[in-house]
Amino acid sequence: MASPAPPQTRSPELRHDPVTNRWIVFSPARAKRPSDFKSKTPENPNPSNNTCPFCIGNEHECAPEIFRFPPDPGNPEWKVRVIENLYPALSRNLDNSSEQSLGLDFPGRMLSGFGFHDVVIEVPVHSVQLRDMETREIGDVLLAYKKRIEQIMSFESIKYVQVFKNHGASAGASLSHSHSQIMALPVIPPSVSARLDGTKEYFDKTGKCSLCVVHTEKLLIDESTHFFSIVPFAATFPFEIWIIPRDHSSHFHELKCEKAVDLAGLLKLMLKKMSLQLNNPPFNFMIQTAPLRIKESQLPYTHWFLQIVPQLTGIGGFELGTGCYINPVFPEDAAKLLREVDLPNGG
Amino acid sequence: MASPAPPQTRSPELRHDPVTNRWIVFSPARAKRPSDFKSKTPENPNPSNNTCPFCIGNEHECAPEIFRFPPDPGNPEWKVRVIENLYPALSRNLDNSSEQSLGLDFPGRMLSGFGFHDVVIEVPVHSVQLRDMETREIGDVLLAYKKRIEQIMSFESIKYVQVFKNHGASAGASLSHSHSQIMALPVIPPSVSARLDGTKEYFDKTGKCSLCVVHTEKLLIDESTHFFSIVPFAATFPFEIWIIPRDHSSHFHELKCEKAVDLAGLLKLMLKKMSLQLNNPPFNFMIQTAPLRIKESQLPYTHWFLQIVPQLTGIGGFELGTGCYINPVFPEDAAKLLREVDLPNGG
Repeated sequence: MASPAPPQTRSPELRHDPVTNRWIVFSPARAKRPSDFKSKTPENPNPSNNTCPFCIGNEHECAPEIFRFPPDPGNPEWKVRVIENLYPALSRNLDNSSEQSLGLDFPGRMLSGFGFHDVVIEVPVHSVQLRDMETREIGDVLLAYKKRIEQIMSFESIKYVQVFKNHGASAGASLSHSHSQIMALPVIPPSVSARLDGTKEYFDKTGKCSLCVVHTEKLLIDESTHFFSIVPFAATFPFEIWIIPRDHSSHFHELKCEKAVDLAGLLKLMLKKMSLQLNNPPFNFMIQTAPLRIKESQLPYTHWFLQIVPQLTGIGGFELGTGCYINPVFPEDAAKLLREVDLPNGG
Repeated sequence: MASPAPPQTRSPELRHDPVTNRWIVFSPARAKRPSDFKSKTPENPNPSNNTCPFCIGNEHECAPEIFRFPPDPGNPEWKVRVIENLYPALSRNLDNSSEQSLGLDFPGRMLSGFGFHDVVIEVPVHSVQLRDMETREIGDVLLAYKKRIEQIMSFESIKYVQVFKNHGASAGASLSHSHSQIMALPVIPPSVSARLDGTKEYFDKTGKCSLCVVHTEKLLIDESTHFFSIVPFAATFPFEIWIIPRDHSSHFHELKCEKAVDLAGLLKLMLKKMSLQLNNPPFNFMIQTAPLRIKESQLPYTHWFLQIVPQLTGIGGFELGTGCYINPVFPEDAAKLLREVDLPNGG
């Protein structure tokens, strides 16, 4: 508080995006220059570790395998493994009971914790991170997500499947071996409901899908044949990135093989650019898709995308209390910086 | 993942509370025993610091003062000061323009960042934390919040005032001198809208206010003349605490003088118990109140409370993606532990 205020180049601004359906406070006065944003807690070192249960050869230390690529379970040379989480947040062994009220005298409701919580081991070798893998290999990871979602869809009571990756301890990763997670929930989570409401409202007003019309030069980072990446207009977090399919599509699991490789290439590029620009920050990515079973009337305004969030700022009482976020970097500034990152050897 | 799973005493469970209006996943299998929860990042040391702008004597290093207790600005012996934030997230100097759309071709909306962002310096001395202050002094801090909200109410365009405290660097505090913040927003934030929807739904069904009926033995921690403290039935975070006025009241700023001292006593007790039980964790507290201007029909189901959240678990891709939270500690277990904390010298 005692140091002189940085030069204030721009007034604070509130922005609203129908996709997140919330107001974000953009507040450059609190920030250093956008180009000065660097992670202060870069990812953990990732030493090869004989005791890592995700490493090839240590499969017996893991919870049961669901499937592997290539699909032959007798072949020790796997590329990707999907396994159960040893400490699942939801249990596949519970009765899928319906909702219980606790009586009219008490306002709470309950549901048994039925669901799935799986782990995708993205690579057999401990020292390789997702961004360093071959594009084709990253494509296989994406196809493993797709295959697992398609399996889970057969459970009537599962309403939504969240695919996510935590990279780095402060982003929630408890193991450094490159992996992601799949959580199948018996409820539609609040962010998804908010997105359905916001995009429906925009569609009702304009006849357009919010994500079909966000491709603008100022916010664009990069493009591939079937996808483009932007910093969203009302990004919740500094340097947040969305990778969006050009063609309207409600569900991630509709992804075709050749598009998976194309998406993998753009994802790899974004992870490399983010790592270089922001000093290798811890990060999360999340696949934002539609609930498993939606009505035909919802198809025109549901459009899946992949959201990448570097962990650069913390969360305090304001965010906890309001669900509102303060972002110190204007999206067009972040997009310009990421667009212009110069990768050695062209990436 | 490789270590043996802890004994699983209870199945995961989803719980919903109309007040937060979201499902929380309770997942004890991922946790250590509730009594083993301790902060790994206890609050920063708080050395006396000649350069701290919040210390008595350094008032000239701060942004302008709004008021002080006692109210004589010429009296250097202040007890509480309310000042402007030197790096405000919102600006009091902006035109309070109305919402702008960016045209039908683009889904974003904008609002100028008009609002207030103030700081409450709770104590003149650097080394004293809120929980160590006299009950009467804590009462004065609460009355400073009330007075400032009443001042801000005169601005028609301010829709909601969020009072919050960040304690400890990892909870968002940039200065260790005990302080809290007041943010006045030109929009109703998402958590508040969700609370209005959830408590209205329960009221429409039962004719009751959700917070008037949550007083149950199992969740109770402590009581004072006018308030009681609980771990809420569907607590978002482990060891989350709510302090709730016994008498139905929509707005925190209706708080009367004598009730402020009573609330201060219970707040002090909760902060002391939390500190002892959880190894002095970083924490946030938030005053959850109704929007400044509500309809008479909303009065019966809006009931303010003070929410305390110790920072014990991080946020990962699942929470970022879904807005859903996983809580490893059942509220009745946390309530029992907090109820039974034995304070030296009776606190």
